[in-house]
Amino acid sequence: MPETSEKAAIVTAAILVIGDEILSGRTKDKNIGYIAEYLTNLGIDLREVRVVPDVEVEIVAAVNALRTRYDHVFTTGGIGPTHDDITADAMARAFGVSIDVDQRAVAMLLERIAPADLNEARLRMARIPAGASLIVNSVSKAPGFTIGNVHVMAGVPAIMQAMLDALAPTLPTGRKMLSRSIEAGLKEGDIAGPFAAVQLRFPDVGMGSYPGFKEGVGYTTTLVLRSRDEARLAEAAAAVEAMLAEMRVRLGAG
Amino acid sequence: MPETSEKAAIVTAAILVIGDEILSGRTKDKNIGYIAEYLTNLGIDLREVRVVPDVEVEIVAAVNALRTRYDHVFTTGGIGPTHDDITADAMARAFGVSIDVDQRAVAMLLERIAPADLNEARLRMARIPAGASLIVNSVSKAPGFTIGNVHVMAGVPAIMQAMLDALAPTLPTGRKMLSRSIEAGLKEGDIAGPFAAVQLRFPDVGMGSYPGFKEGVGYTTTLVLRSRDEARLAEAAAAVEAMLAEMRVRLGAG
Repeated sequence: MPETSEKAAIVTAAILVIGDEILSGRTKDKNIGYIAEYLTNLGIDLREVRVVPDVEVEIVAAVNALRTRYDHVFTTGGIGPTHDDITADAMARAFGVSIDVDQRAVAMLLERIAPADLNEARLRMARIPAGASLIVNSVSKAPGFTIGNVHVMAGVPAIMQAMLDALAPTLPTGRKMLSRSIEAGLKEGDIAGPFAAVQLRFPDVGMGSYPGFKEGVGYTTTLVLRSRDEARLAEAAAAVEAMLAEMRVRLGAG
Repeated sequence: MPETSEKAAIVTAAILVIGDEILSGRTKDKNIGYIAEYLTNLGIDLREVRVVPDVEVEIVAAVNALRTRYDHVFTTGGIGPTHDDITADAMARAFGVSIDVDQRAVAMLLERIAPADLNEARLRMARIPAGASLIVNSVSKAPGFTIGNVHVMAGVPAIMQAMLDALAPTLPTGRKMLSRSIEAGLKEGDIAGPFAAVQLRFPDVGMGSYPGFKEGVGYTTTLVLRSRDEARLAEAAAAVEAMLAEMRVRLGAG
């Protein structure tokens, strides 16, 4: 794992979603948004997401690109018992380690599967790269695993979520990114100039503007401010509120 | 654009989602799944997705990596009037061309915005890289654009969808990937071995297995077969059905 450790102010992460079914559109991903919000709440900054097909060379290239660049990589998908589940083998290849049936994982499978039913296919779910630690799966027992700074989880949302809960207490995290949302009540194009001027006064506070469309209301604008420093965030929010108050008067909306 | 043109059997694509709000989890992406399904129906194979923050160097690196590798790149987000909307400038940088207010885009904006309201911020939405063609926005007029093989669209789903509809008739497409879903009615671990054996007999037909969890039913397995050749797909589906029938008998479920 990179040296940004427990005391680091900023801990970064990427998500790697593995699966043809996401790319074909047959399955609509529900994991990216869930993990993104979960990591923000933990104090981990999600910096990038990639979705790749069930093709070993693509998985290996993506995980190697991401794991060298970010503190954590979270993968979803491809750890079941069928021939298209190739994530564990791809991770072994990416890290240049061997892979074999892991007796700790077999013991976990046997909590749910009768010994007579533990066929060769199901034993695939106990294939774990050498040196990995296991991630407990409280839903269906077949574990995920952590190798280096890569956390390999299931694609089924309920199982992925249980694995993330099991994993979270073990993760080095950073100072939480705090955020403040302000409903502008004005059109984005009317406040963009003065909003940019406030951003210039607070270069250390991230400021975004998000237009939305609500049935019956029309277009709305939400301004989002982000900082790790609560006092600076409050100062910036006050400056944005003051700007909005002035603009409401100027535009005859106040 | 790469030389895979109108008559190509396979046309490939990537999606580049641009936006801090997706990475923070504040906004849950609804565009990836929509575009994925849309492209599959058009006859375009989605091969990769990336999500990057509102940081120019990251956007430039991602779009340059994707546009050289795939026939099309579809981007979403970052083309509004505020200072955090930097996608158009990033595309100009990626392609090494200039960017300025485009009079065709101004004319589109004026269909909806009164001339007196067309301030500097709103004119940002008419900044278009040199050489790009515009993508009509029937919802809110501010256009997207196509530069080279990169199609730059809005992040708001309703607007992105309208832009995709405007764009679709202009896209070179390939032979459609056809698919067939088969509900196994058996546990994934019980059929994984025989399913892999069928896959070996049909190496030209992609076969995936997707466990799902339904409240009240428990775990289910959907087998998905994919091919551009309808006859081969039907043959493979028949082979999978025969395998399943045999397994139902063998497992005492038939």
